Amino acid sequence: MKKSDALKRREILKKGLTGAGVVATAATISAPAIAANRMEVTMVSTWPRDFPGLGTGAQRFAKRVTDMTDGRISIKYYAAGERVGAFDAVDHVASGDAQLYHGAEYYWKGKHPGFAYFTAVPFGLTCSEMNAWIRFGGGQELWDELSAQFGLKGLMCGNTGVQMGGWFRKEINTPDDFKGLKFRMPGLGGDVIAKLGASPVSLPGGQIYENLISGSIDATEWVGPWNDQIMKFYEAAKYYYYPGMHEPGSMLSIGMNKKWWDSLSKSDQLIIEAAASMENDVMFAEYTAKNGAALQQLITQQGVKLRKFSDEIYDAFGEASEEVYEEVQKHSSLAKNIHSSFVKARKETGAWAKISDVEYIAQRNRVLGF
Amino acid sequence: MKKSDALKRREILKKGLTGAGVVATAATISAPAIAANRMEVTMVSTWPRDFPGLGTGAQRFAKRVTDMTDGRISIKYYAAGERVGAFDAVDHVASGDAQLYHGAEYYWKGKHPGFAYFTAVPFGLTCSEMNAWIRFGGGQELWDELSAQFGLKGLMCGNTGVQMGGWFRKEINTPDDFKGLKFRMPGLGGDVIAKLGASPVSLPGGQIYENLISGSIDATEWVGPWNDQIMKFYEAAKYYYYPGMHEPGSMLSIGMNKKWWDSLSKSDQLIIEAAASMENDVMFAEYTAKNGAALQQLITQQGVKLRKFSDEIYDAFGEASEEVYEEVQKHSSLAKNIHSSFVKARKETGAWAKISDVEYIAQRNRVLGF
Repeated sequence: MKKSDALKRREILKKGLTGAGVVATAATISAPAIAANRMEVTMVSTWPRDFPGLGTGAQRFAKRVTDMTDGRISIKYYAAGERVGAFDAVDHVASGDAQLYHGAEYYWKGKHPGFAYFTAVPFGLTCSEMNAWIRFGGGQELWDELSAQFGLKGLMCGNTGVQMGGWFRKEINTPDDFKGLKFRMPGLGGDVIAKLGASPVSLPGGQIYENLISGSIDATEWVGPWNDQIMKFYEAAKYYYYPGMHEPGSMLSIGMNKKWWDSLSKSDQLIIEAAASMENDVMFAEYTAKNGAALQQLITQQGVKLRKFSDEIYDAFGEASEEVYEEVQKHSSLAKNIHSSFVKARKETGAWAKISDVEYIAQRNRVLGF
Repeated sequence: MKKSDALKRREILKKGLTGAGVVATAATISAPAIAANRMEVTMVSTWPRDFPGLGTGAQRFAKRVTDMTDGRISIKYYAAGERVGAFDAVDHVASGDAQLYHGAEYYWKGKHPGFAYFTAVPFGLTCSEMNAWIRFGGGQELWDELSAQFGLKGLMCGNTGVQMGGWFRKEINTPDDFKGLKFRMPGLGGDVIAKLGASPVSLPGGQIYENLISGSIDATEWVGPWNDQIMKFYEAAKYYYYPGMHEPGSMLSIGMNKKWWDSLSKSDQLIIEAAASMENDVMFAEYTAKNGAALQQLITQQGVKLRKFSDEIYDAFGEASEEVYEEVQKHSSLAKNIHSSFVKARKETGAWAKISDVEYIAQRNRVLGF
């Protein structure tokens, strides 16, 4: 037995957890009928503790479920590294060592490229479009099919909105400027910039700053102004590009051990579903509320130079994305089905977005002088 | 005692409702500790039964709360006219004759113009921006202050997204074309078109079609392609304009009797809050998913002519809106506070929307040829 396994086991014993996370508590004595349903469940995460938005959102979800049930379903939350490393969260839950994780599905694209579609993909869906696809365009059903292959069940639980294109030490004027760039970008976005000659690197949030400062990476994307400002990337890279083609509305999610999920009563499933949906709404609202002011501060107080990717660069992104999608679809029939469903949703919602949000915001902002 | 009051009282007695809507049920006998908390609550609405989106969303919320609590909080839902008329919902709840309504706050702008801001106002917030303002920009606090004056507590519970500009029998080429037009448009949008010489009419959804067909009104707005197609407005008016300046992201809501809300346990409040938040997310997702396809059908199968409001018309809308807002702010210090908070949120989120959603969708759609 490895030391980590022994440690893990001791932790489990100490907590008195059974496989399903059901515990007997002090309440057993006074109210057996209710206590029989009490659960203490373990949630791991891919985010540093208290990281604004992603981390605080995950923690808010855990607390909400606990409070909604008066502690009957008590979720104990572990940030990245507190129980397992960020990228080990999925295996920890699949194996039943924890019941839930909060994270971004594209971190598991090595297991199956289909997972990338359930966070964000290049030229993909905005938050509104993602919600439409998952809830009413067949997205959840395909996600369930994919997750079940790994013993998991996923639910939407947060969104960052449109992400920025990244932080660079130099201006990016042509597609050639990506050549040789060591660029932190996970998911299929990383595969796209590889086609342009960059070397994509996937790092969890907690490790980006040190790698950028040390020069181990040349450039990075993370989320958007509010989160990126906290990360202080501007200390190492002054050029801040928009819009990001790689993550236009990154959905965060909870992944649950499927056996555990299936063992829950219908009403407990609905409680978890509602709490996750609420966080899906709340986290996106927080990003929307805070990104604008943070961007202004970055420009006026931290000397950040805001730049827009040119049409030429976007055209190159587009071509490279098509190549990446060709490869993804060859992986399996499920990957092909997910891609086809995504493409259909993108076309329908994209055409509507054009004459609704885009035209409205353009006219409103023009008249008001924003 | 009026007949209607006697009838109401008999209904109440028949249901065994107390003022707070607490009932004893069959479950009392077998499980008293739980049954003591059982509640049968009454919810009225401003929507026709089963009306897609608005009505089905309200019904989904009622069912969700009931199912999440295994019937411990059982919500009995009445569509518009089934218990009280659409526009009587607010008084019915304020008086305690029902515990909740689902509706649009701007229907109550006659009570206080501040209510309009909690559905949608001209040149106002998109769905994402509204969620940001309510949750993180001080919107909920102001809404609470306003609602408390009428014995109510409101929560977000759905959104239509950006609405279309309306259905017209003739083309609208200049601001002068609004003169003399009897135009169904509720909320402050109605006040704006009045400045342009139109006669705004406020009608609940169930009464628009007959008025448009009969010629009692010349034009109408309702929601967007998916809902408007169902209403068959194209039978009477072929010109369909976008984007609507009057409702760029109409928030629907539940309004609760404040005394009832305050009497609930913290965990029951959280359950209702989560269910309302989920519907806020789900309803908007449904509109986003279904509007695009419906618009295509309207154009290709129903001969609808899609038209865009000109810059000149938008400039006129803008000027008229400023006049309306001047008047609204004179109403009371609370109206002024709500307006100021809204203006601040609009500026911050609007600037961010411009370089995020607008730029991204424009580039994506350009590259993909949408």
